[in-house]
Amino acid sequence: MTKPRTGYIRPLDLKNGQVDMTHGSGGRAMAQLIEELFLTAFDNEYLRQMNDQASFQIPAGRMVMATDSHVVSPLFFPGGDIGCLSVHGTINDVAMAGAVPLYLSASFILEEGFPLADLARIVESMANASRQAGVPIVTGDTKVVERNKGDGVFITTTGVGIVPHGVNISGDLARPGDAIIVSGTVGDHGVAILSVRENLSFGTSIQSDTAALHGLVAAMVAAVPGIHVLRDPTRGGLATTLNEIARQSGVGMMLRETNLPIRTEVRAACEFLGLDPLYSANEGKLVVICRQEDADALLEAMRTHPLGQDAALIGEVIEDDHHFVQMETAFGGRRIVDWLTGEQLPRIC
Amino acid sequence: MTKPRTGYIRPLDLKNGQVDMTHGSGGRAMAQLIEELFLTAFDNEYLRQMNDQASFQIPAGRMVMATDSHVVSPLFFPGGDIGCLSVHGTINDVAMAGAVPLYLSASFILEEGFPLADLARIVESMANASRQAGVPIVTGDTKVVERNKGDGVFITTTGVGIVPHGVNISGDLARPGDAIIVSGTVGDHGVAILSVRENLSFGTSIQSDTAALHGLVAAMVAAVPGIHVLRDPTRGGLATTLNEIARQSGVGMMLRETNLPIRTEVRAACEFLGLDPLYSANEGKLVVICRQEDADALLEAMRTHPLGQDAALIGEVIEDDHHFVQMETAFGGRRIVDWLTGEQLPRIC
Repeated sequence: MTKPRTGYIRPLDLKNGQVDMTHGSGGRAMAQLIEELFLTAFDNEYLRQMNDQASFQIPAGRMVMATDSHVVSPLFFPGGDIGCLSVHGTINDVAMAGAVPLYLSASFILEEGFPLADLARIVESMANASRQAGVPIVTGDTKVVERNKGDGVFITTTGVGIVPHGVNISGDLARPGDAIIVSGTVGDHGVAILSVRENLSFGTSIQSDTAALHGLVAAMVAAVPGIHVLRDPTRGGLATTLNEIARQSGVGMMLRETNLPIRTEVRAACEFLGLDPLYSANEGKLVVICRQEDADALLEAMRTHPLGQDAALIGEVIEDDHHFVQMETAFGGRRIVDWLTGEQLPRIC
Repeated sequence: MTKPRTGYIRPLDLKNGQVDMTHGSGGRAMAQLIEELFLTAFDNEYLRQMNDQASFQIPAGRMVMATDSHVVSPLFFPGGDIGCLSVHGTINDVAMAGAVPLYLSASFILEEGFPLADLARIVESMANASRQAGVPIVTGDTKVVERNKGDGVFITTTGVGIVPHGVNISGDLARPGDAIIVSGTVGDHGVAILSVRENLSFGTSIQSDTAALHGLVAAMVAAVPGIHVLRDPTRGGLATTLNEIARQSGVGMMLRETNLPIRTEVRAACEFLGLDPLYSANEGKLVVICRQEDADALLEAMRTHPLGQDAALIGEVIEDDHHFVQMETAFGGRRIVDWLTGEQLPRIC
């Protein structure tokens, strides 16, 4: 790589500077932003190729590819920010095929006037998340739009990964009798975002659970290679994710409310706000469906991982031509856990 | 794939409907938008997996990955729209490594209130571009932001492809003595966008050159496997791209102005607007640098392809510690073709 020649203009003012339209024009200012901010933070051998694409060796096999745009508001929230969220979110989508995530791309749409200090903080958070996960950001893009045509920063990440031989995980593989397990408490991310957006203070601090789940998934696949379904219940929460799977697999589900792990403070916040934690987004949790006889081994493997300590068996897959997700309530009744119809929380991720 | 169950709500009103916040919420309205619009248009076996990631078999070898966000304004312009542009742009970034593009992802950031009819038109254009190129859109994402927090639609595409064995193309491989070739007329896309934005009419119709270049690249690589550098001169135009390469390879360049293919109407429009066609974006052109002795074979291969008919030898790589791109002008003088410093045209792609 040629040493960046950025001495010809003043260094970026990462303290008081702002994004302006020249940062998206393809010229010198854009090259400077990329070199002084993105390349410096994400530094790796692939980005150093300095081409419009990254290049890497891959083994033959089954690859997965996943993409997510992130528009979360506010950009900074308890437990994370749009930067680490955009890394975790796409790593998790790749991992939910049982795959080992290998590489990420990141594309930024910046609003004119956005403080460079905030951008630097976000980029640093992405870089940390990427390093901790061991999944490098190998290529990217930057665009700038005028004031009031964007909202600070939107980040689209795409990931690729390789599925280990013999692993075949898909949303259409849930079978009646299968066990339904969740990796931990549900609803944290959505409630964390809403609390800060509504400027609520409950005397407790509810943090987003944003985290990369590929390490947990690797431990799970090692323990039970024959996992049927894996999915991260993000937008729409656990309820929506289970309805998607029920429909895809052509089955029903029966949950047990008393088994659902929900933090006390999340439950309290939800009651206060009129929300249902089953529909509140998660960014560091997964749902797994496996044969009943594999459930104990899987739960044990999950509980020995830091991100699966609160793993719980929450129900089972049943036959149902209507593909309903039902729940035995704490009071002994039953209710349908339907799709989220409207909007619970906009711009949650 | 389970048959989509969209009968439970009214079908999308693709004629008079608008994007609303529920289309990004993860619930039923989002599922409906995805099924009735995106899945219907992009239909392929990978999307039909209905998982949060696509899965496909790949051979061992060298893979490339490229990503681009598209924020072009206006969304529809002579010769194309943001939809086909977002497919072509990323296919081209993958192809510029000499790679065969295999799969694309597409992520949408929609503004509340955006007409569904416009979205459908854009999605159809993407689907057509993808089909014509033979590169399927295998996974995606949709987010919605409030009015005045976006601008209609932004589309981020990411592509992966495989580099044929023995091909090694990179921006740092230009060597003194190498030939510099451009695949056709320069500046068309930028001028087409500006003409419509400024509501200009020159009595001629300048069209964007947006096109997928991987077929041309395959023909070129077949003729001359030892190509040194390939790049598509998009934002910042030919001048900026050549400066990038000069810096990356640590060389200079000498262009011949009289050899530059520029449409008469583009030249006229540029004079009228005070633009330089060398800095005007292209979306269906490439620059290639190869050994002087390979230039004739490469030009012949290019000119037999529909997208390379106007290919021209425009200069050569020279030694220069300053990495200047220079041009012998039509009048016999020389001038430096510098980096674009500020903003020529915002939101050109």
